Amino acid sequence: MSAVAASISLARPAACSSRAGSSRRAAPAAPAAATPRQPTAVHAVAGARPSAEPEAPEAASTRPQPHVEVFPAMIASRLTEDNRMFVEAHRIRGNEVGPDQRTSMISIATLLQEAAGNHAVAMWGRSTEGFASDPGMAGLIFVMTRMQIQMEEYPRWGDVIQINTWFQEDGKLLAQRDFRITDKASGRELGRGTSTWVMINMQTRRLSKMPPPIREKCEAFQLQPPRHSIPRDCTRQKLPDLSLPAEIVGPVQVARRTDMDMNGHVNNVTYLAWAMETVPRDVYYGCHLYQMEVDFKAECHSGELVESLAARCATHDKLACNGAGPDALSFVHVLRRCQGEACTELVRARTTWRAGEPTSPSSA
Amino acid sequence: MSAVAASISLARPAACSSRAGSSRRAAPAAPAAATPRQPTAVHAVAGARPSAEPEAPEAASTRPQPHVEVFPAMIASRLTEDNRMFVEAHRIRGNEVGPDQRTSMISIATLLQEAAGNHAVAMWGRSTEGFASDPGMAGLIFVMTRMQIQMEEYPRWGDVIQINTWFQEDGKLLAQRDFRITDKASGRELGRGTSTWVMINMQTRRLSKMPPPIREKCEAFQLQPPRHSIPRDCTRQKLPDLSLPAEIVGPVQVARRTDMDMNGHVNNVTYLAWAMETVPRDVYYGCHLYQMEVDFKAECHSGELVESLAARCATHDKLACNGAGPDALSFVHVLRRCQGEACTELVRARTTWRAGEPTSPSSA
Repeated sequence: MSAVAASISLARPAACSSRAGSSRRAAPAAPAAATPRQPTAVHAVAGARPSAEPEAPEAASTRPQPHVEVFPAMIASRLTEDNRMFVEAHRIRGNEVGPDQRTSMISIATLLQEAAGNHAVAMWGRSTEGFASDPGMAGLIFVMTRMQIQMEEYPRWGDVIQINTWFQEDGKLLAQRDFRITDKASGRELGRGTSTWVMINMQTRRLSKMPPPIREKCEAFQLQPPRHSIPRDCTRQKLPDLSLPAEIVGPVQVARRTDMDMNGHVNNVTYLAWAMETVPRDVYYGCHLYQMEVDFKAECHSGELVESLAARCATHDKLACNGAGPDALSFVHVLRRCQGEACTELVRARTTWRAGEPTSPSSA
Repeated sequence: MSAVAASISLARPAACSSRAGSSRRAAPAAPAAATPRQPTAVHAVAGARPSAEPEAPEAASTRPQPHVEVFPAMIASRLTEDNRMFVEAHRIRGNEVGPDQRTSMISIATLLQEAAGNHAVAMWGRSTEGFASDPGMAGLIFVMTRMQIQMEEYPRWGDVIQINTWFQEDGKLLAQRDFRITDKASGRELGRGTSTWVMINMQTRRLSKMPPPIREKCEAFQLQPPRHSIPRDCTRQKLPDLSLPAEIVGPVQVARRTDMDMNGHVNNVTYLAWAMETVPRDVYYGCHLYQMEVDFKAECHSGELVESLAARCATHDKLACNGAGPDALSFVHVLRRCQGEACTELVRARTTWRAGEPTSPSSA
């Protein structure tokens, strides 16, 4: 008997949350894997066929009505605020939701990456090879060195989120891209993020200043004055060192071919997935991942083996302004690739977990 | 220096394709990871600001124009053909494209799964727990036992695809869900798929017949007469056995937490990703994955270690009607979980590779 896509009861381990020990029972699904609810807005917009529209008596008596005939269309992605802001909406997909029915931080990071990429295409266009391009940037590329995301609530399958993203110079060598994530139906802020980028020469791999024509173009697309999604004193904090041997050693991870992005490197969000493997089970399933800070340090290719290490760390300084609350837990994570004794640190990250179950807009 | 998201030259191994040996050079990206082109349709619909709309002279002289101000909105997902067909569109995301700038079979399978799930929600609605539900199905669920996908062309980042999906009974115990994938801009068929489902009792895990009220509802939502996306004599072919020891042994795969779906099992498409690991490098990067046939046999949970085995197999009987062409290569894949000598086969699959590079609608 095959039963791969079957829905079964899930017992969640006891943890931060008072509801963590309760068992969940999957309701039956139609001919599809588990089939979740759509947000309230969908029902309101597109419920069953209006009763004012009479059907032929025969059809009405024999045919059940669908629950939803039409799911609303997404808004167009667009530049706004005098072309200095990019706005995009996404309806959360079923594969972006985990056993708790909520999206993961990984899915959120993927969507932020997508909005950033589309924003870049909107500004620069693209070359025939598929990348965004501006002739003035020849040989230079932006690379992400840091990412920080805070999530108040995680959306569910069918929820529609809106991502606003914008960028601004930060000194002569850095650029910053910020994000604001809202629930499309209510407008409530679900989370926020910021990322740091540098420009490098593709051949030499060395840092480069932005050439004046590119700087000028960037200025035309940046918010004035700068706007920060996370208060400045809560960002770019040094991530603590991890003492070795590590307190927590996760299974060695294999970079899959399908983890590669269009540059032929492991996608940034795959690193986050590997880091997640080291979080203790009761925390991972019972708490709310409020914040993730990630420093990207080196690249990785398919087939490579990656060690995922972690340790519980002191709750950090700016926690109050970060909003994680007094009972928060923090972990430092290191991903590294070793050949014998020689190890290369690929990623260092810190995750901060808020006591209590995650929440989502459609359960609020 | 951090350079995780950097674009670098990619040399592709010599393989089926005459162009496989050429090197690719990534064009520079804006402050985002690699930023690809949008489809021609996007440019046509939403190019630069119309020149008929004059700007203030100052702004016009100093400000570069964006390449795209508005990306078109997606169509609403909807039931159509008298509620017997479900239609959904997706714009391909950057993370769904690999180093060859095209989506993978895995991404396509994910999108088919999403369309199937939304179709189920459209028909049945959902419970407060997040699953599609109908009171008449209490205790019974549909599970997927087989999937077969054929792809003529793979879309790129920004391409918009339309998925049509429908289902129909197939005897007393089986249901079949079919898919047709088209390029939204041109209407050209990119691929097609079919899947087989059975109903089981959630508690006993045994096969169950559909209760009469559910059967009646299903009939109201099925196409009459049945329609098959792949000719019937090309589907449900027995997949060959794999001789042990296997000709190809991939790295042992770790089921990640983020591979889990909302049922707490490894997502179906993760199995496909594991199977891909065993395809020889020259075939994986140099040929066109035309067809994937998968039998799901047992379930898997996070943390489990999975062996990925494969062997080249004889080009199969129905290849002519399958359309893979005379130079096609076929592999049989087995995923299994072992404890000592005792192994459980989780998945058996066959992949069929067409000679020559993959194609995509926006490069055609």
